[in-house]
Amino acid sequence: MPKINPSYSLLKTPYIFPIIEEKLALLETLGLKESVINLGIGDVALPLAPAIAEAICSATREMTHPSGKKGYGPSEGYFFLRETICNHEYASFGFSPEEIFISDGTNSDTANIQELFATDCKVAITNPTYPVYLASNVMAGRNEHILFLPCLADNGFHPQPPEGPCDLIFLCSPSNPTGTAMDHALLKRWVDYAIEKDAVIVFDNAYAAFIRSPNIPLSIYEIEGAHKVAIECRSFSKAAGFTGLRCAYTVVPKTLPHGLHTMWRRRQSTKSNGVAYPIQRGAEATFSKEGYTQVKAQVDIYLESGKILREALHRNHQTFYGGIDAPYIWWKTPNEMNSWQFFDHLLDSCRIIGIPGLGFGSAGEGYLRLSTFTVPAEAQEAAVRLASL
Amino acid sequence: MPKINPSYSLLKTPYIFPIIEEKLALLETLGLKESVINLGIGDVALPLAPAIAEAICSATREMTHPSGKKGYGPSEGYFFLRETICNHEYASFGFSPEEIFISDGTNSDTANIQELFATDCKVAITNPTYPVYLASNVMAGRNEHILFLPCLADNGFHPQPPEGPCDLIFLCSPSNPTGTAMDHALLKRWVDYAIEKDAVIVFDNAYAAFIRSPNIPLSIYEIEGAHKVAIECRSFSKAAGFTGLRCAYTVVPKTLPHGLHTMWRRRQSTKSNGVAYPIQRGAEATFSKEGYTQVKAQVDIYLESGKILREALHRNHQTFYGGIDAPYIWWKTPNEMNSWQFFDHLLDSCRIIGIPGLGFGSAGEGYLRLSTFTVPAEAQEAAVRLASL
Repeated sequence: MPKINPSYSLLKTPYIFPIIEEKLALLETLGLKESVINLGIGDVALPLAPAIAEAICSATREMTHPSGKKGYGPSEGYFFLRETICNHEYASFGFSPEEIFISDGTNSDTANIQELFATDCKVAITNPTYPVYLASNVMAGRNEHILFLPCLADNGFHPQPPEGPCDLIFLCSPSNPTGTAMDHALLKRWVDYAIEKDAVIVFDNAYAAFIRSPNIPLSIYEIEGAHKVAIECRSFSKAAGFTGLRCAYTVVPKTLPHGLHTMWRRRQSTKSNGVAYPIQRGAEATFSKEGYTQVKAQVDIYLESGKILREALHRNHQTFYGGIDAPYIWWKTPNEMNSWQFFDHLLDSCRIIGIPGLGFGSAGEGYLRLSTFTVPAEAQEAAVRLASL
Repeated sequence: MPKINPSYSLLKTPYIFPIIEEKLALLETLGLKESVINLGIGDVALPLAPAIAEAICSATREMTHPSGKKGYGPSEGYFFLRETICNHEYASFGFSPEEIFISDGTNSDTANIQELFATDCKVAITNPTYPVYLASNVMAGRNEHILFLPCLADNGFHPQPPEGPCDLIFLCSPSNPTGTAMDHALLKRWVDYAIEKDAVIVFDNAYAAFIRSPNIPLSIYEIEGAHKVAIECRSFSKAAGFTGLRCAYTVVPKTLPHGLHTMWRRRQSTKSNGVAYPIQRGAEATFSKEGYTQVKAQVDIYLESGKILREALHRNHQTFYGGIDAPYIWWKTPNEMNSWQFFDHLLDSCRIIGIPGLGFGSAGEGYLRLSTFTVPAEAQEAAVRLASL
């Protein structure tokens, strides 16, 4: 019998989304799916911005000409995109384009970065968490080496540094799933901790485009010393409607210890051949004047929908958190329902889909995640339905 | 100090292509790069086929309409593409579309599939080999668990099953780098071995489109029993000029033992969000009448270039192998030069770039890989230069 990875059998319940897909499929057979408002998966609700589509088509047509043919691109991404990102977002922190790695998603990067660490390293992961950090570490054999950081109403859903040491820390802010965001002081505690304990932070900043509060850092590198301890991931997925196009970027500073920058370059150049050229041109277009205006307008629409939903919950005397600097609302289940009970109740009574908090970890029990990725008209309709909850 | 993966320090010399890139950069500073004929990296030399470009642009434009918006696609790929591939290539072996997984490259799939196996499993890898199989297994901590299968002139560069057991076997046929292909009888020995020893074969069949000899199987599933032991990878990269677009597919049969099909689905749905929708539509277009005609014409051009190069080597009394059912020629270095010496000699005397065989493993010493991914006119020019070798 071949020696199979034993850790897969330790993975918890199947990933939440397939279960919800099944429930939706059942509703479809009952002819009820059309009336459902899906505020579950955090996926784009608006069509692709025209400036991005034009850039993708233009790059694709370019490839049909002998002078424009493009074969293998650099594994780390084309320099034009790395440089554009750097100029707009990271040069002010002293980074160079070589420290920015293009990939097919923050999902991939946050799942793969653990490969640079030893199997027996100690990993700190929030509870609740975006499930990929946990699953990828369990798959890699670290089930016994995970330190859970509770994020509860008591601590404003902000993870606190542990007493003892750890090697690798996953932080997501603005947070998926709680929709809360760490301010400068909270994030500084983590950077200081990592410097003191010689730990590395993977900072999942995929929702940076949703930050509007002035006290929330747009990047972890706003914190002094972060370039020595932090890897930052950002994505075009939510900022520019790229969930169906797959493009993201991760800053792996040369100033990190233990050659992590070189290790990541080696990992990526071995295991990946990069992102399609036309997609990278589409990503570049999000920084043009026209492209930026279009994608910012989309983010503003999602934030407006979030405002409508928060106001509706408020009118209905519900307890909830987040949704201000993030496209997620973390809703305390009413009447002491557990999170799957409330999921079913919300679907039955309002035909609204959320994600049961339990799907993000044990500390998510008693909560439901509501995505604000919808258009204001649909958010209004949801608001009307919520009145009858 | 954080616990870093110790295996990265065991990786051999940096990947070969960066070294060659450096040599090319040096030639560029000397104003000599323009005259170089690059038969090194196996990358497309022809522009993207119009039918593919049209499909990509059409799908991208579709995404700009509210009714055509596409968010996250299935991690395993869109059903339309899995079904099309299945109908054309795998339904005849009894497979269903669910057994075909779309990815961003055979590179990624062959690098990632080892994650399903235990760290201490025994892995058989040819020598020479496509470097990714080896590097990804070393990175995963299997440096001491690798069984090398010598591929030498003595055995026609065909790997032979070992005496003892092993768990995971990487085979590439038509072979990168040797350009040779296993016939039915040779491949059957491997399938029989795997069935007997309870091993799993990863069959990298990325060059299937180049097979023209009738005795070479187009798929490992032509061999009886292979569906119980083999995973097969194919790619649009070389078959349809997709190196810059990133799309491939891997068959992971449900009939494999130990739940490997389910494990792979779990791995992919956790660590990947799939391939861009427009790219998958482009891949689908390679199966249309128009698309198929265009991409087959490109493969024929590369095979024609290979014929020109083989004839030139023959005229020059060189010893070489492969290049018939594959876009690679495995050239025995003349005058007992080692492979880097011959690389430099070929570059200096003919301004032709190949890949030193040593870059593919110790048994590649004394050989040079010549890619036939070029247009016939350039192959003719190379043929002229080779006369002065």
